[in-house]
Amino acid sequence: MLTVTDREYKATGKLTFCEMDEPDIEDNEVLIEVKAIGVNRPDILQKKGFYSPPEWVSKILGLECSGTIEKIGKKVLQFKKGDRVCALTSGGSYAEKVAAHEGHCFLLPNNLSFSEGCILPEAYMTCWLNIIEKGLLKEKNIILIHGGSSGIGSAAIQISKWLGAKVVTTVRDNSKKIFCERMGSDLVINSREDDFCNKTLAYYPDGVDLVLDMIGGNFTEKNICCLKQNGRLIQIAFLGGQYPQINLMEIMKKQIVITGSLLRSQTDSEKKRIARLITMHIWDHITKKPFKSCLYKEFAFAEVNEAHQLMENFKHVGKIALKV
Amino acid sequence: MLTVTDREYKATGKLTFCEMDEPDIEDNEVLIEVKAIGVNRPDILQKKGFYSPPEWVSKILGLECSGTIEKIGKKVLQFKKGDRVCALTSGGSYAEKVAAHEGHCFLLPNNLSFSEGCILPEAYMTCWLNIIEKGLLKEKNIILIHGGSSGIGSAAIQISKWLGAKVVTTVRDNSKKIFCERMGSDLVINSREDDFCNKTLAYYPDGVDLVLDMIGGNFTEKNICCLKQNGRLIQIAFLGGQYPQINLMEIMKKQIVITGSLLRSQTDSEKKRIARLITMHIWDHITKKPFKSCLYKEFAFAEVNEAHQLMENFKHVGKIALKV
Repeated sequence: MLTVTDREYKATGKLTFCEMDEPDIEDNEVLIEVKAIGVNRPDILQKKGFYSPPEWVSKILGLECSGTIEKIGKKVLQFKKGDRVCALTSGGSYAEKVAAHEGHCFLLPNNLSFSEGCILPEAYMTCWLNIIEKGLLKEKNIILIHGGSSGIGSAAIQISKWLGAKVVTTVRDNSKKIFCERMGSDLVINSREDDFCNKTLAYYPDGVDLVLDMIGGNFTEKNICCLKQNGRLIQIAFLGGQYPQINLMEIMKKQIVITGSLLRSQTDSEKKRIARLITMHIWDHITKKPFKSCLYKEFAFAEVNEAHQLMENFKHVGKIALKV
Repeated sequence: MLTVTDREYKATGKLTFCEMDEPDIEDNEVLIEVKAIGVNRPDILQKKGFYSPPEWVSKILGLECSGTIEKIGKKVLQFKKGDRVCALTSGGSYAEKVAAHEGHCFLLPNNLSFSEGCILPEAYMTCWLNIIEKGLLKEKNIILIHGGSSGIGSAAIQISKWLGAKVVTTVRDNSKKIFCERMGSDLVINSREDDFCNKTLAYYPDGVDLVLDMIGGNFTEKNICCLKQNGRLIQIAFLGGQYPQINLMEIMKKQIVITGSLLRSQTDSEKKRIARLITMHIWDHITKKPFKSCLYKEFAFAEVNEAHQLMENFKHVGKIALKV
């Protein structure tokens, strides 16, 4: 089968293709014939050597895909050969075939294309874990979402609106404001033009209940500043800096909670648990109106370097898919 | 009535005494004839101007005391004139009389002296809120307590042992090790001689479940480092620095929770709730063996400056009381 490899990336700055054996599957796994692949920022960090995948996973890039099931393991109960699915993978999706844990797959309804489906698992599982479970977001709460025009940002906006919360998002480019509004954000702030903390407090003087942050760096202090009493700061990435300073007095006074997570390093059973809860509670909503697909652009599999270039330049909104 | 004042502290470096009217009491308050006062580090920060008390509280120093009830407000139900009590106060304890919310008082059993009683409310309410409620400490968990020989440290050791946890404490002076061991600590580390993180991990390779920290500064990064997956860092002061750096990757990877609190700025009803839970669940234990009093030294009321000097020099273990 054809796969993408980052073997020559250091020398050439390009991902290339190579032939590899198709993966074996465990008893609780399915083999997916990949039709579309979701592109994620960790893919870029990984090819550059900034993000080591856990040791036990495929060294091939790719955290999510969609396709049809070609083979099922002996103990697989929920899926059968031929099913259209999308799946979270611990790696290996940048290939014509990939093995996925059956518990990490979602049945893809016919109204969604493979490209629309492949971009769902990573974003919605991240949002479920961090907004609902760690963030405890409730109806009438206010959430501040940084990077609102990213793939995770757009899923976060929609999950938060579905829960009945007020949503504030930040972008770093006015052209991305409209996208966030279309996804349902109540207030969009350009963090290059305005101090997001002051602007948020101007609209919501008591502060926000939850901040979902993928920036860190000098955002962290402001995140803490614009949180309410008992507010929560959930960190899911740190594009702006890994080692921010925090003000312990603010944390103690307001009893702020700071936490975060990485989806990729969750155990298989933890991912299965999250996927099952999404399937039970929100999958029907995600895959139908008023939820909106945040697919920005499809590239052919051969154009993987162009797809990465687009993400590296921060010129997209929502998500990017590769069609196999 | 005679009270301590910090009016002349800036000019002279001394607390002085002055006569003031005795405080009025609200319907839900009692007037306590003060017999003993617990000395706390915030008293020192406050007299130096580093810690502004909330606006609505007495400007007189003093967060806890014991004594006999001289008068009760119209709606007071739990206490009567003459009862021996100890109480958490939002300020005002450095005086011959103080008003306290009835919900913030504890009945003092006869086996405890006023000096032994006056040092309990602040330490045990802080520990209940931070170790049990925010820290979620459970049987067989491991807790790391910094400043183990402080008043809060010694209460923290005893509450943690009562819960069935393993206790690691740090001290900055070998002479204080014995005190922590006597309070029940399983492992005591001199953080000036050993890297507390390495030493903790040498004994407990998986790390600890909970860190109760009053240091901050360069302890913070090491606190995060020696926590287990899903571990919690609870901040209750920052004697070593208010603005530490944190490593977001460590927080995300291990899903660490960082939070904290200030007892003084809790609402009256919140303090009442905590006091009621302590009374119901642990007061009988705290005031009997095997719980040990951590009273280090009693001073006469007139020796308030000497008492503060002892605390400022970090030469004590446990708590200091002023006898009125």
